[in-house]
This record gives sequence, structure tokens and C-alpha cells, in this order.
Amino acid sequence: MKKPIGVFDSGVGGLTVVKELIRQLPAEDIVYFGDTARVPYGIRSRETVTRFSIEDTLFLLRHDIKLICVACNTVSSVALPIIKNHFKVPIVGVISCGAREAVYATQNKRIGVIGTRGTVKSRAYETEITQLDPLVMVTAAACPLFVPFAEEGWLEGKVVEEVARTYLAPLKKARVDTVILGCTHYPLLKPVIKKVLGDGVTLIDSAKQVAIEVKKILFSEGLLCGNTKARHRFYVSDNPEWFSSMATRFLGAPVGRVSKVDTNV
Amino acid sequence: MKKPIGVFDSGVGGLTVVKELIRQLPAEDIVYFGDTARVPYGIRSRETVTRFSIEDTLFLLRHDIKLICVACNTVSSVALPIIKNHFKVPIVGVISCGAREAVYATQNKRIGVIGTRGTVKSRAYETEITQLDPLVMVTAAACPLFVPFAEEGWLEGKVVEEVARTYLAPLKKARVDTVILGCTHYPLLKPVIKKVLGDGVTLIDSAKQVAIEVKKILFSEGLLCGNTKARHRFYVSDNPEWFSSMATRFLGAPVGRVSKVDTNV
Repeated sequence: MKKPIGVFDSGVGGLTVVKELIRQLPAEDIVYFGDTARVPYGIRSRETVTRFSIEDTLFLLRHDIKLICVACNTVSSVALPIIKNHFKVPIVGVISCGAREAVYATQNKRIGVIGTRGTVKSRAYETEITQLDPLVMVTAAACPLFVPFAEEGWLEGKVVEEVARTYLAPLKKARVDTVILGCTHYPLLKPVIKKVLGDGVTLIDSAKQVAIEVKKILFSEGLLCGNTKARHRFYVSDNPEWFSSMATRFLGAPVGRVSKVDTNV
Repeated sequence: MKKPIGVFDSGVGGLTVVKELIRQLPAEDIVYFGDTARVPYGIRSRETVTRFSIEDTLFLLRHDIKLICVACNTVSSVALPIIKNHFKVPIVGVISCGAREAVYATQNKRIGVIGTRGTVKSRAYETEITQLDPLVMVTAAACPLFVPFAEEGWLEGKVVEEVARTYLAPLKKARVDTVILGCTHYPLLKPVIKKVLGDGVTLIDSAKQVAIEVKKILFSEGLLCGNTKARHRFYVSDNPEWFSSMATRFLGAPVGRVSKVDTNV
């Protein structure tokens, strides 16, 4: 089906999900919306994140999309049930995908979750993991400085290492063998997170799992596309230049034209 | 005159200005608005910051205020001329106050300015300073991680010191003897900034100057108030609990009740 996949995030982080979608579904058109006028979502209340998410979804629906991929852990944690209830279009979030992979990966049944304050406070990963395996012990830690570090390009060195050491101490203490990177920014900090946690710990990046899930749904609903040349369009609510400059870091390739949305999204 | 002073900021930083207003104008009622649903402003475009500032001003006008104090350097840098043009109420920003004090303080005519990306990019301090004294050399540096550090409470230690050393290097190289803290969050990081810059450098905190300016205007316009017990009201667009928990750090005292504004501000 020639309709595009819609992807939204509070800003640029969701591009790590787009990267996987392109890799696994190269024939699919994609419309991406980054709410850069109101980023970050991770520090906001559940109520506000829900309102923003509904507006983001409505924006994507205007582009006649066939499926929505919520490429934002905060939204997936606090607002997914509501937007799934509201809208007819299939909606895929990042939480269940990451949780499933982590439960599969853990050997000692101790999983760590790192994310924004909003994600950690929601306990969404704990709920999901416990449903899959009630015997798994989950230790979660909010890492609020990781997003500014990723966006400012402080990806290595003693500063970010020291902060990582502080944030990840409870996970090390709990002797987790698997850690979910519960924020789409965190894959950029993988090397330093890996260094602090040590080689014995498996890092789960939800992006890959989300793309697998999207593929599965499109297949079972008969919505897969046979494009020869897929179109990827990028919209933001503010600062297209900043978004473009960040995009290469998150997507691994330039995004081309980024359009600023003039509506009051 | 019994009408309150209105103060707005993107979040909690403006409370450092409220603190000075209360100290210098203890009889005045104050209505504060922090746009916590859309904080931070410093990373947003001029156009978006201007739109948000107009909405913030309209919110304060609903409270029948007699003067507006823009307690946000980003807004003062990029949107002040427009909102001053639009509205009849007297509006005081932080830039001209800080610039004046810095020009007065410098001995070697080398002034440093630190602020958000938005503030630095606007060159508002440079423009203001050069108007006051064309011989002054200004060196500006954006310190984007300082806001998350202040809000996360990383106010000292080797992490913030290392980041400060990186950010402030161009100012040290330019041998400035005076530095404007061009963001209302930065006074919280004064000790570490002072440590990195050394004792020979004077730090200018605009809050004090803004309060002096407000006092001057209220006096000359016959708008001073003779309250015996002043009322201070605090409104936010999101997360009143978070705002309250931050407030003590920024205001030096608890704020009491914080109301969440339900409008789509």
C-alpha cells in the first residue's frame, strides 16, 4: 500500500528509529514529525505529554499515513494507551518491543532500565517486563543529563563518563546483565554506557525491535509497500536548521529537506 | 497603586529576579508565570520564542498587572522590541540592565557574556554594550549545559568544573575582567564560574539591576504600592510540583502554592 509510515518524537531522538525502519523496510515511505518547539518531553507531566502526543498524531494523520510509530519512550510510557484508544490507525510504541527483547536476553533475570524522568516515573517498562516474566527484577534509573549531552555532542570523555558512573551506579549494584536504553537519544552514548557497565552487560536498543514489529504489522495487515524509490519527509515545529545539523548524528546520514510546520502544533 | 508586577520566564530561572524584586520592593504584589510546558526557550528559534513571549504577556495581562518584567535573557534578547511595540504596559528586560552594570564595572574594557545559544546568537548584549561604550570588546560564549546542570542540582564538583573550563576558555583567553551571567539560571553556578575565571573577574547578575530599573519606573510613573502585606502568586503551564521543588533553590525560600494554568498557553 502506497501510504507512508508516520513516525513522531519530541525532537531528533526518533531518527534512531527511522534509521532502523529504513534499514529493515527500504521500500516504505516515511513521514517524520519532530516537535522541536516543545522538546524535551521527558521533563513534562503525563497530562501535558498526552496532549502533545494527540496533537502530534493529528499532524501525522493529515499526511494519510497507514501506521504510526511512536519513536519516543516518554510518549510510549505515559500516553500510548490513550492515543491507541483514540485513533483507528495502528500505533506501535517502543516500550513493549524493548521489554520483550530484554526479557529474551537476560540470563540472571536482572534487567536495568535507563530513561528520562517521565519514562522512569511511569514504571511502564517494569509493568511490561513483569507481564512477560514475573520473576525478573527490574532496576530503573533516570539519566536526565544524557539528552543534553547527546544533543550537545558530549559523547565521550571524563565529564560524560563521570555522570554515567553516577547514574548507572544503582544498576551496577543490582548486578543487572541487560540494560534497556529507554530513550531514543541514548544509543549515541552507547560507548560510554558500555565502558561504565562493562562487557558482561547487554544493551538493548528498542529501535531494531520497533522496526521488526512495524514490519510484522504491515505484513499481517497486508499494508507492505512495493515502492522502488521510497520518499522520506521530515517535519519539525521549530528550528529546521538545528534539526538538520543533528540529523546526521542520529540517522547516520543527512535528512535532506526539513520543513517547518506553521500550524500551532 | 495596588496592581501587581508581572514577571515571566520560560521556567524557574526567573525566580532569581523575583528574589531581588522582593528584596528591593517588599510592598509589591507579584504575579509570576513560568512556561514549564515549553521550557527551555534558549534552544528555540527567534520566531518561536517571540510567539511564546506574546502568549506569556497576554497571560499576565489577564491578571491586571501594572508592569511586566521579562525575567528571561533569551526573550529579552530576541523578542523584547516586538513585545514592547505590541503592548501598552511598561516592559523591562534583563539585557540593558546587565549591560549597563557591566560597562560600569569593567576596568580593562573587556567584557564576557555567557548565555543560552539563543541569547548568544542574538548578539543583544554586544549591541547594547557597544551603544553604551563603543570601545568595549565583548566576548560571548554559549553554555548550553549550564541550564540542565542547574536544574539537576549539579552545582559543583569535577564534572561541572570541567564543562565550565571548556565553555569559559575563550573568555579567559580574551582576558575579560567582567562577565555577565546572561541567563537567569547561571547565578546558581556562580561558585564554579568564579573558581574557573579567578578572583580578578567581576560577575554581573542582572537580577539586581532589573529590580532597580523596575523600582525607578514604578516611582517615576507614580505606580509604587504601599501594601503592608504583599501577595506573590505563581503560575506555571506544567508540572507545579517540579516547579515548587526547584523554587527553593532559585528563590532562596519556598514559593507556597503554585497553580497550573489550564489554558493552551
